[in-house]
Amino acid sequence: MVQATALPRNDAGIETVTAILKQRFSDRLQTGASIREQHGHTTTWIDNQMPDAVVFPQSTDEVAEIVRICAEHKVPVIPFGTGTSLEGHVNAPAGGISVDVSQMNKILAVHAQDLDVVLQPGVTREELNMFLRDQGLFFPIDPGANASLGGMASTRASGTNAVRYGTMKDNVLALEAVMPDGEIVRTAQRAKKSSAGYDLTRLLVGAEGTLGIITEITLKLQGIPEAISSARCSFPSVDAACQAVMMTIQYGVPVARIELLDALSVAAANAYSKLDLPETPLLLLEFHGSEAGVVEQAETFGQIAGEFGGSDFAATTSTEERSKLWQARHDMYWASLQLRPGASGISTDVCVPISRLAECVTASAEKAAEMGLIAPIVGHVGDGNFHTLLLIDRENPDEVAKADTFVGWLNDLAISMDGTCTGEHGIGQGKRPYLEKELGPAIRYMAAIKAALDPDNIMNPGKILPSST
Amino acid sequence: MVQATALPRNDAGIETVTAILKQRFSDRLQTGASIREQHGHTTTWIDNQMPDAVVFPQSTDEVAEIVRICAEHKVPVIPFGTGTSLEGHVNAPAGGISVDVSQMNKILAVHAQDLDVVLQPGVTREELNMFLRDQGLFFPIDPGANASLGGMASTRASGTNAVRYGTMKDNVLALEAVMPDGEIVRTAQRAKKSSAGYDLTRLLVGAEGTLGIITEITLKLQGIPEAISSARCSFPSVDAACQAVMMTIQYGVPVARIELLDALSVAAANAYSKLDLPETPLLLLEFHGSEAGVVEQAETFGQIAGEFGGSDFAATTSTEERSKLWQARHDMYWASLQLRPGASGISTDVCVPISRLAECVTASAEKAAEMGLIAPIVGHVGDGNFHTLLLIDRENPDEVAKADTFVGWLNDLAISMDGTCTGEHGIGQGKRPYLEKELGPAIRYMAAIKAALDPDNIMNPGKILPSST
Repeated sequence: MVQATALPRNDAGIETVTAILKQRFSDRLQTGASIREQHGHTTTWIDNQMPDAVVFPQSTDEVAEIVRICAEHKVPVIPFGTGTSLEGHVNAPAGGISVDVSQMNKILAVHAQDLDVVLQPGVTREELNMFLRDQGLFFPIDPGANASLGGMASTRASGTNAVRYGTMKDNVLALEAVMPDGEIVRTAQRAKKSSAGYDLTRLLVGAEGTLGIITEITLKLQGIPEAISSARCSFPSVDAACQAVMMTIQYGVPVARIELLDALSVAAANAYSKLDLPETPLLLLEFHGSEAGVVEQAETFGQIAGEFGGSDFAATTSTEERSKLWQARHDMYWASLQLRPGASGISTDVCVPISRLAECVTASAEKAAEMGLIAPIVGHVGDGNFHTLLLIDRENPDEVAKADTFVGWLNDLAISMDGTCTGEHGIGQGKRPYLEKELGPAIRYMAAIKAALDPDNIMNPGKILPSST
Repeated sequence: MVQATALPRNDAGIETVTAILKQRFSDRLQTGASIREQHGHTTTWIDNQMPDAVVFPQSTDEVAEIVRICAEHKVPVIPFGTGTSLEGHVNAPAGGISVDVSQMNKILAVHAQDLDVVLQPGVTREELNMFLRDQGLFFPIDPGANASLGGMASTRASGTNAVRYGTMKDNVLALEAVMPDGEIVRTAQRAKKSSAGYDLTRLLVGAEGTLGIITEITLKLQGIPEAISSARCSFPSVDAACQAVMMTIQYGVPVARIELLDALSVAAANAYSKLDLPETPLLLLEFHGSEAGVVEQAETFGQIAGEFGGSDFAATTSTEERSKLWQARHDMYWASLQLRPGASGISTDVCVPISRLAECVTASAEKAAEMGLIAPIVGHVGDGNFHTLLLIDRENPDEVAKADTFVGWLNDLAISMDGTCTGEHGIGQGKRPYLEKELGPAIRYMAAIKAALDPDNIMNPGKILPSST
């Protein structure tokens, strides 16, 4: 495991706040070791740093009350959704109170005419889509986990549909948040666009809970398309697949999804999901549109793929076949783990300009092989974002060190290509040094904003900003 | 004309800075009354407040040098693009130095494979599209004026294509800016998406030059569609037209443009552009896609329009017919002025959830009639944004007062409908009281950010934030 630095604790304040909150929230304030451990970070290779207590508010006013009490005593507040983030976002390096919003899980209003929904932050993306289905609507952003919408907003999450529908930054219309002083603000009205003042919505989206806790979210929705089809195509090389992706995007084909699996990932999928795909780089696509439109999109892609040596092209509008393929894609994490039974997966998350993608993916695969790492690659390649999954024994310090070296090397490579160390997972604790490499002087202004809004650094301390700022 | 409050001047500082800049920039520092007046606000009904000098930098380093000198002497810096903004954004209520970026007009790099362009802020949108045309690319955002891209980013501009392509917030990938202390920062890399830290890109987009001066912009581009078609349809009422818009959006028709002209605007267009459209509310549409796709889109819209009493539906793929219609739309400002020769036009800019649009537009027309104002309406109705153009004699205090009352009434109405006082023009000086009504407590955090980044309030003072903060 990777050590996360502990920060100085305010033990007296924490004790006082815990007592006040216990009095106020009774059983909705928990201090047992097991629940605290669950609320420290468990889905990462960073050591678990438990909060001192976990509180379960049920309303914005309760969140505001909790934050005011914590602010008064300068005690850390760590927002918690489903705990599925990957970079130590919910760890409590200075202790403090984990604010678990899972009981704030109401869908407050669906405005079908406006294609938007207002909901509490504890609603998960699958709950939302289940709820919307009967109304012919859906919310497209789909990170791997069944994350909470509050968490997804906070990490600026995306997933396989981002190439068409954008990321959380593009799909949050407005937020209500409790600021570090306990005040409740709304960042925007429900209008589709606005030039009214600083864009606090997008300042809070991706702020990882360091500037406030999101308590209500207004999201854009999409109508379920008239037709959905999918396609797959095998390629002789990662480079050929990436060339086909670039051409598809340039040609303006409005693909809803375009995912790359490298040969190793395809092998893993074949074994795990009982498929018999050629074990060479594969593109998986999905098209949304009218009946005629999706056929046309698939044909256009098929032609482009042919130009780059694509083979075994297959398109289908059958729901069953489509589900089977995409289920295999969604199970890639589990399938990959079977490449080395007993190992843990450490996911990288770089994103580069699409013109550099082939080079970056290829270099990544070569470097992993050179270092003796088993490291299948999947990518949201329409956006230039890919994940190398390092399969290591987390208890073996040599392997952890090797993985750490690889992650650093890949982040540096992506940054040198005008890319980012994180396309969708966020900075958290794990990527703080790389943020500094990536954006340099800009960090100072981020730190100034943080200090202005949260002078006592109580909101999710130890995340995003390098400790030197 | 509407008075804009003057702010306290730092005469000694301004004198010193002007002398230093004159020495350094020679003829690129101008202090003549006429050039200063051109750089105070001229495209608004707010009184002109001239800067003390205008400087024409040619590089980021020169901008940084200017800002450092101004920062040292606490002298206001007012960024200037083309001066086409509408809410007093370039006025100098405390005097100071107008930084005119018109000589920073280079397109630095087109990355066709990545569909992006890197350019200096003085490039105008028409210059950019002229430059891109041969490469089969275009930049979709089209405010009425041929504005500079720096100004468009600063006001979070949009226009007729936003329903499909989004606003400047969605189309700026990264910025380089000179911050209030003179430091040069880059807000993001060129990757299509990122979760790396606070979204400084979107904090600066729409900040109206109050947090820094944009010196370089990376914009997303689009491939010129294979086919473009347009359509028009007349409706018995604004309500019927808006119902058709809502259904079109809900149905997922990817319209590139969907514009409303009310009956008065149609009459003005008929007279000015020599058309013979039925003088009832009109929708003008444009479709982008494949040959088959644009035909299908037009057909789908035609069916929807029919359900809401649409008549005189006409679709065309002829470039000539299309240009004629859209030219008429682009000339609406001039056409409308002819409804009352000699009058000036004052544009409102509210944006409401689309479900409230019909009600808001209808109420706006009724109110104007009741007040005896001539006030044609055009709207980017796919986004719920519309402009009532008040035709008044700016030298007649009664008419100005009446217009002021109307603007306030409409802004309040839009805000009460969960809408905004500005969909795309920005706050500037003119809308500051409404920002407070619209977002209440959020303003305090905007002010805190401003104070943290610009403690001496030198960057475009007197804009966005209410003076009480």
